[in-house]
Amino acid sequence: MTSGTPAARVLLFDVFGTVVDWRSSIAREVAAVAKSRGVQIDAEAFADRWRAGYRPAMDRVRKGVLPWTNIDSLHRMVLDEMLPEFGLDGLSEAQRQHFNRAWHRLDPWPDSVAGLTRLKSKFVIATLSNGNVALLTNMAKFARLPWDCVLSAELFHHYKPDRESYLGAAAMLDVPPAQTMLVAAHEDDLLAARAAGLLTAFVRRPLEQGPRPDYNLPRERSFEYVADDFEDLARQLGV
Amino acid sequence: MTSGTPAARVLLFDVFGTVVDWRSSIAREVAAVAKSRGVQIDAEAFADRWRAGYRPAMDRVRKGVLPWTNIDSLHRMVLDEMLPEFGLDGLSEAQRQHFNRAWHRLDPWPDSVAGLTRLKSKFVIATLSNGNVALLTNMAKFARLPWDCVLSAELFHHYKPDRESYLGAAAMLDVPPAQTMLVAAHEDDLLAARAAGLLTAFVRRPLEQGPRPDYNLPRERSFEYVADDFEDLARQLGV
Repeated sequence: MTSGTPAARVLLFDVFGTVVDWRSSIAREVAAVAKSRGVQIDAEAFADRWRAGYRPAMDRVRKGVLPWTNIDSLHRMVLDEMLPEFGLDGLSEAQRQHFNRAWHRLDPWPDSVAGLTRLKSKFVIATLSNGNVALLTNMAKFARLPWDCVLSAELFHHYKPDRESYLGAAAMLDVPPAQTMLVAAHEDDLLAARAAGLLTAFVRRPLEQGPRPDYNLPRERSFEYVADDFEDLARQLGV
Repeated sequence: MTSGTPAARVLLFDVFGTVVDWRSSIAREVAAVAKSRGVQIDAEAFADRWRAGYRPAMDRVRKGVLPWTNIDSLHRMVLDEMLPEFGLDGLSEAQRQHFNRAWHRLDPWPDSVAGLTRLKSKFVIATLSNGNVALLTNMAKFARLPWDCVLSAELFHHYKPDRESYLGAAAMLDVPPAQTMLVAAHEDDLLAARAAGLLTAFVRRPLEQGPRPDYNLPRERSFEYVADDFEDLARQLGV
């Protein structure tokens, strides 16, 4: 980062993949459900399908095809579609509700809690996730994530990467976009934040999609920070 | 509380007066500002006037006379009106902004942090304040309040005691009103919460308005809990 770059006061964090390891966590719950039903299943494939289904569902909300629908409800729509294909359509309503809330019970990456705790000593740290407030709040309790504030696309009725979500979060914390930094493991999220005037920090999460030998640093070189994990980001930010 | 009462899963806290001692904290900042300007002032009277001015300003928003205006802005409107009367109209814009943010720097009551930390081990604990999100977030950092989530009337564009604020908070945390309890030191707030279907806990804060020999328990006897402070509430809730 060059010395002329304005300093961030608030760090906003993407959550799924950046703070928590959704794939391993969901696969673990999928495996447990499958075992309880005596069904053979590829738990990682199930997790990947569930995750992949959320984006087109969210895009239907973004384009106005669906009215505002939160992520719990979008996850549930995708789940209900998937269950028959995986031989799990015998699950009761209560079991489906519990299974759907697996997204509230995601494990943090090994550095997340320690890194966030360090960063919190110098910055306001908040979520900026497409996950709904209840999901993020329950997840923070489960994973002991020390947020100063839980912000969600739900508050603005605009999912990322809509510009309104980034600007809404900065405005709600009463900080100019130029003093707000998005921390994320995904280039598209960071590029949209930068287009809205925020600072950007890319964090490598090479295991988000499972082991991938082709995982690389972002091609985009102009993020203010590129870090190996949250501890590295804290070090680079002088905490 | 009778054994048939449904259990709360979420505790929502009123903040000004219930969690933090606004009067002493504001008076301290008023005294410092007055001293820096060489002005004699009754700092407690200033604090009381500032606080008293906020309710009619808020009611103008509730009645639609003013469009949605957050508490930082309402505090600032009241402050700008008061400064000339107290001989402080020489303050610059930057000084006024800093002074107005005294409401972000309020001290907790002596039991607040320890009591909230205990309660957090069993319940989701969140603010439900008329203060805006930025104010509540900065205050939590200043006073080390361990919220799971910062909720504000700002998110619903309805100030308490509007019904929408209580129901909005329960809905945002995905918990039925009957499993949500408002904790507050003010009867009007609790009565409105109860009318919306929430559980209620009254906490005595006999020093909120300064020493008052006539401070009494609420006349209203039907709150689910009446506690001397947050430690007492935690004990009564079995934490």
